Amino acid sequence: MTDRPKTPLLDLVNRPADLKQFSDAQLTQLAQELRSETISAVSVTGGHLGAGLGVVELTTALHAVFDTPRDKIIWDVGHQCYPHKILTGRRDRIRTLRMKDGLSGFTKRSESPYDPFGAAHSSTSISAALGFAVARDLGGVTPEGLGDAIAVIGDGSMSAGMAFEAMNNAGHLKKRLIVILNDNDMSIAPPVGALSNYLSRIYTEAPFHELKAAAKGAVSLLPEPFREGAKRAKEMLKGMAVGGTLFEELGFSYIGPLDGHDMDQLLPVLRTVKARATGPILIHVLTKKGKGYAPAEQARDKGHATAKFDVVTGEQKKAPSNAPSYTSVFGKTLVEEAGRDDKIVAVTAAMPDGTGLNLFAERYPSRCFDVAIAEQHGVTFAAALAAGGMKPFCAMYSTFLQRGYDQVVHDVAIQRLPVRFAIDRAGLVGADGATHAGSFDIAYLSNLPSMTVMAAADEAELMHMVATAAAHDEGPIAFRYPRGEGVGVDLPERGEVLEIGKGRLIQQGARVAILSFGTRLAEVQKAAEALSARGITPTIADARFAKPLDRDLILELAANHEALITIEEGAIGGFGSHVAQLLADEGVFDHGLKYRSMVLPDTFIDQASPSDMYTVAGLNAQQIEAKVLSVLGVASLGEKRA
Amino acid sequence: MTDRPKTPLLDLVNRPADLKQFSDAQLTQLAQELRSETISAVSVTGGHLGAGLGVVELTTALHAVFDTPRDKIIWDVGHQCYPHKILTGRRDRIRTLRMKDGLSGFTKRSESPYDPFGAAHSSTSISAALGFAVARDLGGVTPEGLGDAIAVIGDGSMSAGMAFEAMNNAGHLKKRLIVILNDNDMSIAPPVGALSNYLSRIYTEAPFHELKAAAKGAVSLLPEPFREGAKRAKEMLKGMAVGGTLFEELGFSYIGPLDGHDMDQLLPVLRTVKARATGPILIHVLTKKGKGYAPAEQARDKGHATAKFDVVTGEQKKAPSNAPSYTSVFGKTLVEEAGRDDKIVAVTAAMPDGTGLNLFAERYPSRCFDVAIAEQHGVTFAAALAAGGMKPFCAMYSTFLQRGYDQVVHDVAIQRLPVRFAIDRAGLVGADGATHAGSFDIAYLSNLPSMTVMAAADEAELMHMVATAAAHDEGPIAFRYPRGEGVGVDLPERGEVLEIGKGRLIQQGARVAILSFGTRLAEVQKAAEALSARGITPTIADARFAKPLDRDLILELAANHEALITIEEGAIGGFGSHVAQLLADEGVFDHGLKYRSMVLPDTFIDQASPSDMYTVAGLNAQQIEAKVLSVLGVASLGEKRA
Repeated sequence: MTDRPKTPLLDLVNRPADLKQFSDAQLTQLAQELRSETISAVSVTGGHLGAGLGVVELTTALHAVFDTPRDKIIWDVGHQCYPHKILTGRRDRIRTLRMKDGLSGFTKRSESPYDPFGAAHSSTSISAALGFAVARDLGGVTPEGLGDAIAVIGDGSMSAGMAFEAMNNAGHLKKRLIVILNDNDMSIAPPVGALSNYLSRIYTEAPFHELKAAAKGAVSLLPEPFREGAKRAKEMLKGMAVGGTLFEELGFSYIGPLDGHDMDQLLPVLRTVKARATGPILIHVLTKKGKGYAPAEQARDKGHATAKFDVVTGEQKKAPSNAPSYTSVFGKTLVEEAGRDDKIVAVTAAMPDGTGLNLFAERYPSRCFDVAIAEQHGVTFAAALAAGGMKPFCAMYSTFLQRGYDQVVHDVAIQRLPVRFAIDRAGLVGADGATHAGSFDIAYLSNLPSMTVMAAADEAELMHMVATAAAHDEGPIAFRYPRGEGVGVDLPERGEVLEIGKGRLIQQGARVAILSFGTRLAEVQKAAEALSARGITPTIADARFAKPLDRDLILELAANHEALITIEEGAIGGFGSHVAQLLADEGVFDHGLKYRSMVLPDTFIDQASPSDMYTVAGLNAQQIEAKVLSVLGVASLGEKRA
Repeated sequence: MTDRPKTPLLDLVNRPADLKQFSDAQLTQLAQELRSETISAVSVTGGHLGAGLGVVELTTALHAVFDTPRDKIIWDVGHQCYPHKILTGRRDRIRTLRMKDGLSGFTKRSESPYDPFGAAHSSTSISAALGFAVARDLGGVTPEGLGDAIAVIGDGSMSAGMAFEAMNNAGHLKKRLIVILNDNDMSIAPPVGALSNYLSRIYTEAPFHELKAAAKGAVSLLPEPFREGAKRAKEMLKGMAVGGTLFEELGFSYIGPLDGHDMDQLLPVLRTVKARATGPILIHVLTKKGKGYAPAEQARDKGHATAKFDVVTGEQKKAPSNAPSYTSVFGKTLVEEAGRDDKIVAVTAAMPDGTGLNLFAERYPSRCFDVAIAEQHGVTFAAALAAGGMKPFCAMYSTFLQRGYDQVVHDVAIQRLPVRFAIDRAGLVGADGATHAGSFDIAYLSNLPSMTVMAAADEAELMHMVATAAAHDEGPIAFRYPRGEGVGVDLPERGEVLEIGKGRLIQQGARVAILSFGTRLAEVQKAAEALSARGITPTIADARFAKPLDRDLILELAANHEALITIEEGAIGGFGSHVAQLLADEGVFDHGLKYRSMVLPDTFIDQASPSDMYTVAGLNAQQIEAKVLSVLGVASLGEKRA
């Protein structure tokens, strides 16, 4: 393991109030120590590195100037919060980041009073800060008190509509509220959109060296308080702006851009704002993602998310992969389908790499649309592409598609438009935890009239489902697949078009039938092996479709078995609920069927390894085996094994 | 009935191409005839009047200048489309608006090729227009061809984040695209937010009389095409702008503001744009909602939605009400609860009247927040209000809460924050049709860990649920109730706090138990009366809670009856699915239970009277009776009755 860095000042900090003892020069040194500690910690745990390194000075300055936890700092997305966690009493656990029972990789209310509002999905921070500001002014009470509300939001996150909605509302309410725009010209991928161009222009028009002087000068010129002090100060602060028209039109005072790595700019501006701000104010801070760590600065993604690594070389220690990831199989298959059909286009919301569409964008740049963090727009845009005769694949993570749910209902499903939803990260996702789990898509899509819903049991099935979606022009269709590697099956030359609403029999057995929807199939097969040692050979089927259901298959399984168990990696209301409705409607329950539906439990499951999460969820092979035994009334040997 | 207006020019129009024969002066007259015809039609049908009256000139000008249906006009929200329907071959059916088997009150793809993209929820039009523009440039094919894409969006709709997302994406892609900002300073309610102030400023800075001259002058000065013609024209168009910085920063060329009731401004500008536009362009048009019909112009809501009325007097012919509406009961009850607890605050998204929060806003203006059409922000804002120690009631229609679904999951449920969701218009809604149905909320809320979900069976129950929600600080809680009048029960002095997760027995019977969730209870009781004539007395229970379920009640009903039927006004995946999961888990199905779950069918149900819609849905008393008879194996007498 790497030696721990020397951090003499940081070692004196147990909580943010300890920063008040330091001079500005010491705070600059502290920030550098915080950077070293962050690099050291992430080298051990893996995780989001670049974002945190970009804000060590900002984190230090905010905690030095404001009074947390009374003042509320709300980190948008939250993946830049590791330095914040180190300063706020969690340094002793910082090397448990993203591990089971360790610190979350995001801010989390239940973890610390210094995390007043959790995050993980982007662009919520201004809404949250405005809520705290309004609560404060209405006499709201929290155990830590209620002071200033400060949102720190990246330029990528500003592209999401809800950030605009919040700015619009804040400009109207005119409450004292501080928004720090952390402009690193880079969200996960380089940002796209007109706003990004706008921010770049502001930057070009205002070189650092001039600004630095301007910032210092303006602060030193601030008048002592007098009758109209607040008004004057506000005007002076406004005078510092060299850009920001867009924000000012929305009712914000604008300051910036500042060099976010220069404490001599950050500290005086934040102090002034704290002393004088009256209404909503936006501070535009320029930072470099990955700042101060060469391997991150030089990486294309600026060290956005990393495996464990060697601090000296930056080399990542990734476990060798045994099979291609579902994401890459999707990406490659779509490129191949697109080679055969020039109407295929792709839409992603700031996730070209995460969804595998980077491959598509390279091969067919004019047919790939990264709409920025804008799922609402992305879904409706895809709907209109379909109405215009194209075949759009809308590739989003399950958890982020929630952002576009109304558009799926209103613009896609009601109009029966053939949008193909490629739903990545469906089910449990490991280290990113509950906020990123794709738990609800089966339920929230399968009850929409006109929608077809598939789940891939393995990576070859995923290829078939891409082909099936490409061929399906009758209405919207979705296919879901999990994070991570496939199971290692042989891949066909080309995906085949599946018959809509037909599952497949994997293994014919007796007494009990297990009907799997999605990738739990491998665990079902493992469970079946263990059961065969007890003389029980379950029938196994892969449903492929949650909608439309394979009625014949399901009714046949029900008719010919004592028990029927469904399993899916999703919350209640999805596949199993549709099967139960069919069985009830057909009167199958009238005369008795041992029916069980294994679904995600009614809890948000904290980060852990995927295998640990499945155990918590009750969806691993041993638990499937136990379910079969209990349903059949066979004594379990679980205790002996445990 | 009112006499039909004289419409000599309009009588010559069977399709938009017929407008090409008219002079500009005739088009001005045609617009006036279109106004008269719209008023006449809505006086017979009821519906959205004000919005359509505000755009008769714009509608006429667009169809006169552009070539629909090859060019795609996308009306945001769509409630201003009645004049458009009259001009596009639907005049003969215009007096069937919003009726069963009649014309939809919104644009609808399945109704006409002149409706290229349906709408009803706001702020989708720019995304849709961009999709058509991109499809056009990629060689997309539609039966009508693919020409210009024109979004017409109101200023209220611009506050929604997805409009901003679409502008941001359009400014980036630089495709030829026309956005018409129909600025009537009024969405349903007077608009709020900083953007609205911004638009007002533009208006103030640019009086009509100057602009009129400027618009005419600029157009007449346009140079003939030459090598750099396009570039020059664009610059000239830009030069016409007197405001619009915000839009220009997002990459749009800006023209305006124009007087939207002056054809002499609209026609030349639209012709110029059609001839010269290269990239995205925003035309800012000022209109008056309700224009040209005094009763609408003078109404507070500018004739937004009206019952049938007398054309001469404007007097509306509303059916006498027998009971207070659920909306008003909610509004009044919340005001009363707020009088006892100063931490209660309310959040609505541009629906103060529709949700009954207008009463709250009058009584407690500083505690009521209309965040504009911004459900995403509204939900997260409410979450932070809760984190700040307040007790927020977030009042939204079921169908619009879909816009904030991710925020419900990510900001409210995962953080267990006690936001109270008051979900109006839950279930089928009548004349507004499928796009406004509240079909999915039971399913999409009940599978969220930490969420409590209630439905009111009548207006007294709604009072109890408001009180229950006010008292519930342990996590998020939702209660749903339908559009329209209550059932007329006596109202208590004050709502009582219900025990969480406990239903109530309405009637003890035998053989069959009917477990109702929500307002279908009245139909269940009617069905029970009819059944009693056959000697069948069903047990009836009101579940009150879909989550947590009343396990004891449900298991007891299952144990003591031959059959158990659940009923709810929601899609599959909701209450009935949760009951089925419980029964399966408890092994109740192992030995047989005649279980049925009556839910909304797997279709989007078109507009009709509520009672007709319930018949289509299979959820009225007679259908409940038939279900009971069929489950019990008793021959139905349905044929005799029919």
